Amino acid sequence: MNLKDYIANVKDFPKKGIMFRDVTPALQNNESFHFIIDELAKYAKEVGANVIAGPEARGFALGAAIAYKENLGFVTIRKPNKLPREQITEDYDLEYGKNTLCVHTDAFKKGDKVLIVDDLLATGGTAIASAKLVERLGATVAGFAFIINLKDLNGLSLIKDYSVKYLVEYEGE
Amino acid sequence: MNLKDYIANVKDFPKKGIMFRDVTPALQNNESFHFIIDELAKYAKEVGANVIAGPEARGFALGAAIAYKENLGFVTIRKPNKLPREQITEDYDLEYGKNTLCVHTDAFKKGDKVLIVDDLLATGGTAIASAKLVERLGATVAGFAFIINLKDLNGLSLIKDYSVKYLVEYEGE
Repeated sequence: MNLKDYIANVKDFPKKGIMFRDVTPALQNNESFHFIIDELAKYAKEVGANVIAGPEARGFALGAAIAYKENLGFVTIRKPNKLPREQITEDYDLEYGKNTLCVHTDAFKKGDKVLIVDDLLATGGTAIASAKLVERLGATVAGFAFIINLKDLNGLSLIKDYSVKYLVEYEGE
Repeated sequence: MNLKDYIANVKDFPKKGIMFRDVTPALQNNESFHFIIDELAKYAKEVGANVIAGPEARGFALGAAIAYKENLGFVTIRKPNKLPREQITEDYDLEYGKNTLCVHTDAFKKGDKVLIVDDLLATGGTAIASAKLVERLGATVAGFAFIINLKDLNGLSLIKDYSVKYLVEYEGE
């Protein structure tokens, strides 16, 4: 399957000069959706993950479906003010300003091997902040799984100490 | 399975006087997570859904896993400024202020039977706005599926014209 046929390329979103890679058509189509989940679930098994985690919001759709397929539980990595119980947080830099990610302290246990799933690897800021949350709770990162790697943004260099799987790559436009 | 054993009750979140029903423990545990998805997927089949949709963000985790299980595609119903292509929007009232939900115009086709999935039915505002988006694109709502119904907030009355499934109900504290 050529997954790029199911990814929309949208010019100047969210701002001028950005070519946005929109995976919603690939999720809406049952064949491409199942291809994605099956491929990433295979990787979850290869790396021995026993927990799947995904950052808000598209990471929830992919991560939970992989968790279902692999008979594992799913952990939501959230933006601030969403989780109600005891939690830890990680700030990370954006081009302008900062973002923060949060997980409940009971989300991961010592010895857990966590696969972190998101639709797209860009600069890697979300990925590395997610990994820190996993490790601060005594678990290890089994790997990262993405649909897309945006090569120009060099996110792979930020997570070079980890195992990484992606299904398609874009370079330039 | 007594699902309430896997739902955390958090006092005064997000503000004083609210008892928040937190489903994250039920998603993290693989047995309760699979019980939820299997039960709601059974309902998806009963009502003949051919598309699953979920509002941001917890609706993504549940809806996508149900879509995977039933071999269907998954549509993300999003907050403003997230979708990059041609879309329609619905405003709805909150206790203070308004929220807006958005879908791409290619998300649903005439004749689609859409199951709308979320973790929790509260006032029903998100649910009815989601239904309007489905119907404005010429599709029909096959039903609504939730983990939790908060009986006191009477969301069921707002979606009384639709088929609804929920797995547990809370009344008062």
